Amino acid sequence: METILVVGGGLVGSLLSVYLARQGHRVHLFDRYPDFRNAKAPLGKSINLTICERGFTALDRVGAGDLVRAISVPCYGRVVHAVDGSVEYQPYGNRREAIYSVSRNNLNRTLLMLALEQPSLICHFEHKCLEVFLDQPAVTFKDLRSGELSHWRGDRLFGADGAHSAVRQGMQRAQRFNLVQEPLDQGYKELDLPPAAEGWVLEGNAIHIWPRGHYMLIGFPNLDRSFTLALHMPFEGEPSFASVRTQEDVLRLFERSFPDVLPLLPNLGGDFLSRPEATMVTIRCSPWTYRDKVLLVGDAAHAIVPSYGQGANAGFEDCSVLADCLAGSDGDWSAAFARFEAARKPNAEAIADLALEHFHELRDLVGDASFQLRKKVERRINELFPDRYMPLYSLVSFTNMTYVEALRQDRAQRDLIDRVLALPGILERLDSEEIQEAIGGLMDQEPKRSAELAIRPARMIRDHGMTPAEFP
Amino acid sequence: METILVVGGGLVGSLLSVYLARQGHRVHLFDRYPDFRNAKAPLGKSINLTICERGFTALDRVGAGDLVRAISVPCYGRVVHAVDGSVEYQPYGNRREAIYSVSRNNLNRTLLMLALEQPSLICHFEHKCLEVFLDQPAVTFKDLRSGELSHWRGDRLFGADGAHSAVRQGMQRAQRFNLVQEPLDQGYKELDLPPAAEGWVLEGNAIHIWPRGHYMLIGFPNLDRSFTLALHMPFEGEPSFASVRTQEDVLRLFERSFPDVLPLLPNLGGDFLSRPEATMVTIRCSPWTYRDKVLLVGDAAHAIVPSYGQGANAGFEDCSVLADCLAGSDGDWSAAFARFEAARKPNAEAIADLALEHFHELRDLVGDASFQLRKKVERRINELFPDRYMPLYSLVSFTNMTYVEALRQDRAQRDLIDRVLALPGILERLDSEEIQEAIGGLMDQEPKRSAELAIRPARMIRDHGMTPAEFP
Repeated sequence: METILVVGGGLVGSLLSVYLARQGHRVHLFDRYPDFRNAKAPLGKSINLTICERGFTALDRVGAGDLVRAISVPCYGRVVHAVDGSVEYQPYGNRREAIYSVSRNNLNRTLLMLALEQPSLICHFEHKCLEVFLDQPAVTFKDLRSGELSHWRGDRLFGADGAHSAVRQGMQRAQRFNLVQEPLDQGYKELDLPPAAEGWVLEGNAIHIWPRGHYMLIGFPNLDRSFTLALHMPFEGEPSFASVRTQEDVLRLFERSFPDVLPLLPNLGGDFLSRPEATMVTIRCSPWTYRDKVLLVGDAAHAIVPSYGQGANAGFEDCSVLADCLAGSDGDWSAAFARFEAARKPNAEAIADLALEHFHELRDLVGDASFQLRKKVERRINELFPDRYMPLYSLVSFTNMTYVEALRQDRAQRDLIDRVLALPGILERLDSEEIQEAIGGLMDQEPKRSAELAIRPARMIRDHGMTPAEFP
Repeated sequence: METILVVGGGLVGSLLSVYLARQGHRVHLFDRYPDFRNAKAPLGKSINLTICERGFTALDRVGAGDLVRAISVPCYGRVVHAVDGSVEYQPYGNRREAIYSVSRNNLNRTLLMLALEQPSLICHFEHKCLEVFLDQPAVTFKDLRSGELSHWRGDRLFGADGAHSAVRQGMQRAQRFNLVQEPLDQGYKELDLPPAAEGWVLEGNAIHIWPRGHYMLIGFPNLDRSFTLALHMPFEGEPSFASVRTQEDVLRLFERSFPDVLPLLPNLGGDFLSRPEATMVTIRCSPWTYRDKVLLVGDAAHAIVPSYGQGANAGFEDCSVLADCLAGSDGDWSAAFARFEAARKPNAEAIADLALEHFHELRDLVGDASFQLRKKVERRINELFPDRYMPLYSLVSFTNMTYVEALRQDRAQRDLIDRVLALPGILERLDSEEIQEAIGGLMDQEPKRSAELAIRPARMIRDHGMTPAEFP
């Protein structure tokens, strides 16, 4: 039994603490926010997020999956809203696969309460990390209630303290450390869409999206049949958070761009003025470890933009992979940490790239004809060969395939789409029955996997001196 | 008169404090190290560095130049040592221009003592910055002697606290913040070459370099006729800090690669074992400002690798440029900070790129025939046209031209060298007298400046929405 300090009681820190406590360790979990188990509107980010297959896999291993399913709304597809009010429903999968919409706060509360049920775990709220001592390892915290400092020493220290991790900042100066912090030039603001007296105002088991080029609105269903909307806009330009500033500005924007949703938002102007603009950032760094003493997990190691809905899922997967690395290392923490970083870093890079790519795709859902055409061809291939072709979104959201492998498979599939698009008269023949044979022929030619990865994951693999085959 | 908090009493923090105190402000200067005015071997980095024209320009404006000249050794050229013991002397300029070798500690002590002479300045030693509050602005420090915390509030806050700036870390989470921290895969270790009973052991008014491809030795003369050597090696590979670990290893390395200097290093093995490996890092970030409250300067804003000898010089130039921005802004700190960042950021990017480029050039001084040929042609052009052609090193080291302009001029000059190299029979004719006319003809054709900048500075200019003409 070791004494383990976990800095950060967010989604990943809470779940990690459950995993570590279940492995028999004494866990001290520190969080800078007040105990929010009973709070109705706790501090911090309150945006909704979605949990998918790989997230549930990690949750189920410690019995948290059903707790989370109970507070989530399954979404079987996406409803795309055009400016003229017309809608298109796009199912996420062919087998009624769903992603689960859940409020961050409810999810965090659920995981934290599970953590607090562990007999060997103590949680210290309102403890802000001020200083990190890697070699011991130890941390000095300030109690935000009393202002007093306390010094905690453990056998291991985990930094689960998010994109702006204080533990990582301690590592940045202690060793050669690579870091790229790259914010998007867009942000988002949350708006409330209240529930009707009965039934759903919009399709309830779906994510809603109003794509408008460089800005968009996304809607997540809540258990109480309300929706949480996120208005994404650039910080500069037209429209942007710089140009849309007053209640009148935001009403005009919605009249012009989101007329169907405007009547459903009684407090649009107030929400817009009172809510902060959330920023989105990608963090890439290495190493994640300091000897056998310190390890970064979740956003502290690999924050990504939220467009793919994978931030929490990737963090949960960290916990599960780490548990395997620890179980397979027979008490050698140094080996376990190294295996964890070697296994996760390429996947973190892959999902960071995919999330940025998807961010641009989401904005282009409207307007880009060639992108639309590719999506149409992809849907047709998937329809004809549901067992042989799985779109990237499905690979990422409805399997436990590593992100690196999903990326690799997607790049091979893109190549297939290119070749399908090159078939003579494909556009006229796409919905015909005969097309199946032509596409099947191309699929048979195709190597099962493309050797080509996106540039970045390939480089990261090289950095670790590992070949792709060595990844789990 | 404003109350100004300066975090970091290193080279730039000390000089900046002098500037600010001279402008009539009340300055509180905080440093985490003990008062080292009277210490013989203070904490922190003790490597030598070089001050050049632009550094002295900034020092002279507050009367610090002669204080620094008095503790420095002017170096008029570079002595390149081959493995066979032969040496080649390369003067830095045609007009006996010099860079000045000085110990970091002596330099810091000198600047700090000048700062402490300012009536409106108080220095707080052994104060470690724990928390930064940007909006006030304010800082919580820990007194490293007593462990007690103190909270300081000012009108402005300057982060002059180096590559791993705590002030910058406070800014990273408060706003959209871009950061790239990129360490070199090489480090260096200092070695002492003691003075002889009389006279210099090696040429005294020169920087010495033993280039050996991926590793090298650099020697800086000291006032007491000793030299400080820096052994630069990769962290991995052969030879490297991973492969050279014992006294025997380092002796073997020197016998093989630096036989001429080995007899001059009586404590080589001991120095090698007892000294830490210094790391080198490039930091690029933006913004450097937080409203009209906080500004980053020096390494905190733009740490660069030391190969061009420009880190301290760029930081000193920051102080001088900032003074001009403040003087020209009539008390509008927001405008002054914005002008400072707009003026300095492109130059910081340019010198960061040049320093990395020069790092690779230094290693290639031996071995790369085409590089040697270009240098030979460049020396000849410079010899023939000393008023019309100035090598990049001279532009950077012996003028006050902005780094961006130096880079632009160098790229035009590279183009000229390409065209000279394309002249028929140039290699045979290079030393002839007739060649002057041919090269002169090419120079007349040449546009005074190339429009092409390196990619990065061009991008940074775009990011700021400024055209090159707007830079000072």
